[in-house]
Amino acid sequence: MANEDQFKKVISHAKEYGYVFQSSEIYDGLSAVYDYAQNGAELKKNIRDYWWKAMVQMHDNIVGIDAAIFMHPTTWKASGHVDAFNDPLIDNKDSKKRYRADVLVEDYCAKIENKIEKEVKKAAKRFGDAFNKEEFLNTNGRVLGYQEKINTILKRLGKSLEAEDLADVKLLIEELEIADPLTGSKNWTDVKQFNLMFGTKLGASAESAMDLYLRPETAQGIFVNFLNVQKTGRMKIPFGIAQTGKAFRNEIVARQFIFRMREFEQMEMQFFIKPGTQAKWYEHWKETRLKWHLSLGMGADNYRFHDHEKLAHYADAASDIEFKFPFGFKELEGIHSRTDFDLKAHEEFSGKKLQYFDYEDNASYTPYVLETSIGLDRMFLAVFSNSLCDETLEDGSTRTVLKLPSVLAPVKAAILPLVKKDGLPDIAKQIVEDLKWDFNVTYDEKDAVGRRYRRQDANGTPFCITVDHDTLENNTVTIRYRDTMEQKRVNIDELRDIIKKDVDVRTWLMKM
Amino acid sequence: MANEDQFKKVISHAKEYGYVFQSSEIYDGLSAVYDYAQNGAELKKNIRDYWWKAMVQMHDNIVGIDAAIFMHPTTWKASGHVDAFNDPLIDNKDSKKRYRADVLVEDYCAKIENKIEKEVKKAAKRFGDAFNKEEFLNTNGRVLGYQEKINTILKRLGKSLEAEDLADVKLLIEELEIADPLTGSKNWTDVKQFNLMFGTKLGASAESAMDLYLRPETAQGIFVNFLNVQKTGRMKIPFGIAQTGKAFRNEIVARQFIFRMREFEQMEMQFFIKPGTQAKWYEHWKETRLKWHLSLGMGADNYRFHDHEKLAHYADAASDIEFKFPFGFKELEGIHSRTDFDLKAHEEFSGKKLQYFDYEDNASYTPYVLETSIGLDRMFLAVFSNSLCDETLEDGSTRTVLKLPSVLAPVKAAILPLVKKDGLPDIAKQIVEDLKWDFNVTYDEKDAVGRRYRRQDANGTPFCITVDHDTLENNTVTIRYRDTMEQKRVNIDELRDIIKKDVDVRTWLMKM
Repeated sequence: MANEDQFKKVISHAKEYGYVFQSSEIYDGLSAVYDYAQNGAELKKNIRDYWWKAMVQMHDNIVGIDAAIFMHPTTWKASGHVDAFNDPLIDNKDSKKRYRADVLVEDYCAKIENKIEKEVKKAAKRFGDAFNKEEFLNTNGRVLGYQEKINTILKRLGKSLEAEDLADVKLLIEELEIADPLTGSKNWTDVKQFNLMFGTKLGASAESAMDLYLRPETAQGIFVNFLNVQKTGRMKIPFGIAQTGKAFRNEIVARQFIFRMREFEQMEMQFFIKPGTQAKWYEHWKETRLKWHLSLGMGADNYRFHDHEKLAHYADAASDIEFKFPFGFKELEGIHSRTDFDLKAHEEFSGKKLQYFDYEDNASYTPYVLETSIGLDRMFLAVFSNSLCDETLEDGSTRTVLKLPSVLAPVKAAILPLVKKDGLPDIAKQIVEDLKWDFNVTYDEKDAVGRRYRRQDANGTPFCITVDHDTLENNTVTIRYRDTMEQKRVNIDELRDIIKKDVDVRTWLMKM
Repeated sequence: MANEDQFKKVISHAKEYGYVFQSSEIYDGLSAVYDYAQNGAELKKNIRDYWWKAMVQMHDNIVGIDAAIFMHPTTWKASGHVDAFNDPLIDNKDSKKRYRADVLVEDYCAKIENKIEKEVKKAAKRFGDAFNKEEFLNTNGRVLGYQEKINTILKRLGKSLEAEDLADVKLLIEELEIADPLTGSKNWTDVKQFNLMFGTKLGASAESAMDLYLRPETAQGIFVNFLNVQKTGRMKIPFGIAQTGKAFRNEIVARQFIFRMREFEQMEMQFFIKPGTQAKWYEHWKETRLKWHLSLGMGADNYRFHDHEKLAHYADAASDIEFKFPFGFKELEGIHSRTDFDLKAHEEFSGKKLQYFDYEDNASYTPYVLETSIGLDRMFLAVFSNSLCDETLEDGSTRTVLKLPSVLAPVKAAILPLVKKDGLPDIAKQIVEDLKWDFNVTYDEKDAVGRRYRRQDANGTPFCITVDHDTLENNTVTIRYRDTMEQKRVNIDELRDIIKKDVDVRTWLMKM
């Protein structure tokens, strides 16, 4: 399946099987905001729990917190978000539409890239098996000319943005004769910086009202609580503070389903270390986090590291774990060596010391910080899109199956009476009653059993348990495995252990 | 301990033992916003899980969702929040301070009530054992006069607010000669309605920007998704949709620690039923929810129902489960029979049908809704304040112990080597390694073991496991129970089962 088709299928499957709905759909939706439906809410919760268990419960030196979304506004002065968390925007004077200036330029380059691709495709058709893409690009001047043009443009854009030379960004748009994609007008305003934080006001009185922001990241909630946690928790360096929670960014161009949303959830851990040890811990956490991803068995080839060459102002090393989404390799998690930038900034703005007394060294210092930061919604999309596949079976028929790692599957087992009579439903319902204490299970009696199997396959349910007439004789049932479609006859009393062994967090974390 | 002292102790204990910190404390805090610290985050998570398991996992006909905080603004027109979610405010012209007009009047009445209490206390002192409060109040005209005055004032206030006669509320304040509590000025503006929703703006362009609200309740996220969940989840009435999540209210007077915050978390379930069956389901859910509370063993005397006489516009019956907080009985959970008000309103505003086709009746109808709605932060405060106590021991010494229900305790067990030598720390650490797969456990080697016991008592840890020299001989350890301080000698291999039996959700839910 082509990538674009696959992505469309992901989105429609997510809707059809109760994973993700557009927010406020009855009011025609809210742009770039989504709701997690009955299966999605469980999948999201299971991912969050899997992360929390691996990061907090399994580490005696990592604790979790749950800081509020509202924080004192000075927090965002100290973190740099008030001054520097901006997108460069440009308005078209005729259409009154607003765009991200950098995206206009990037889209322009993407169009040229498409032209190259078309030339390549044409040549491939012409030369057949003898075609070599690299050779073609290297020897074909016209195509290479396009590539050079793109490089020159993007280099200038990067330089101008870095130098905050917004006038040159506008000049670039004018020189390239970029037009409003909607109307074709080239009548542009100047480029201006636009802050991505959502603002609101706390308190009713004009005098006492305070401008607040919805936090654009969860990390700062950890930094401002660092000393309180260290002292009341008697933590010794190295130690970590983890948290999961909502963050908000007023993205101008939010797109790609739940990949880039205006309201999203992060799972972050800040690891406080002795200055000078950051290189060691950077390697440690890169490796540990990749192992966590690999434990889910979604294929090592689908992950790669992307080490940043250009570093953010707070970092001395940074790498992304990229995942192969339906639209290509994209950032899934970041591992950042943040130095003492954040704690020092909060010391400066609060006038309070945020230092740690090291008994071994008999000295105080401001700790360095190693961060691991993963988008929960992106992780959801990675798991969901990677699990969805169409299979052709031996008999030539096809099935759609959602091969979610069973530890994350919303419903662990469906209990199906073969027919709706002879007391089979009662036995099936009794199995539900017994298993529901330990797992999220469901009862399904509608339609032929083959159709129910397909429905549970598409739903991502790892086990189907079928009660038939033999059950009345010998207390056994059929257990069917989603991925292999293998069926086994087992005693009802064995079910709990069979399922538990397969879906238990311990089983999966052991793979790390 | 007097109630006020007890409440102060709750707040300081919550800080000292890493349960609740003031938000952004290094910036001197943010009014009525709090962060959950390392132990608080776990306790909050455990309460949320205990609710989710009881409501969603244990009910085959209840599913959970996770809707976004941002919703289409028309949602809040339909729900009535844009027009009617207001507080009556009044400004003092001299001090420029703003107050809730109804609270000014209520505080005035509270002062009179204090006067009565003082008279009662004086009389009690005078009469000694012979004193009877009821008799005194009934026969003492002067005190009774105060009581009558209060009744008259509150009745008029209620009537004026209901009729939206804000001019009369101002008149009442003037007649009572209520002064600005800060400055004594009686120079008041008119009373005006102030909407409690936090607003923000989505999108950067002036033209395309959309006024959004931070949701003031999670219920509407369920109503707008009702039909999508019903259809994709193939749900049959009666069925429920549950969700937990943040909500926001710009309270003018937010107080009582985490009892009334501007940012808070709800755990709500909307149960969709056939019209005409609401009385039955109202009783069912009142009973079921009370049983859930009682399963935690915090004392039946601490709960009472408060059936509403005055009903909200959407309800045909409503009751609160009140809990005895340190500051008295207050609402902890609401059970509301909401009729078809919400779905009908969304049908009207969206122009879409939100109906259910009942195959048994062969007819479509707009379902009625039975709601259970509990504040997670209030539940946290109920559990925490109820668990905290000072005990005098047999030897005359005292201990502070946080008797959290073990299923909710943040840390299930502390593993303590008796001394820091002879290989005892290694054995203790190995026990941590073995148990951490199943429970949140901690290692503690600092200070004398008696002091560590006290620390874990105050921390709420149900079990202390001590490794001593006998352990080297026979693989046994001491397990100490927090509440009884009883100590038993058990084999290391038994630990997992002993702890699991005590802290397992199943064990506690079985009590329902």
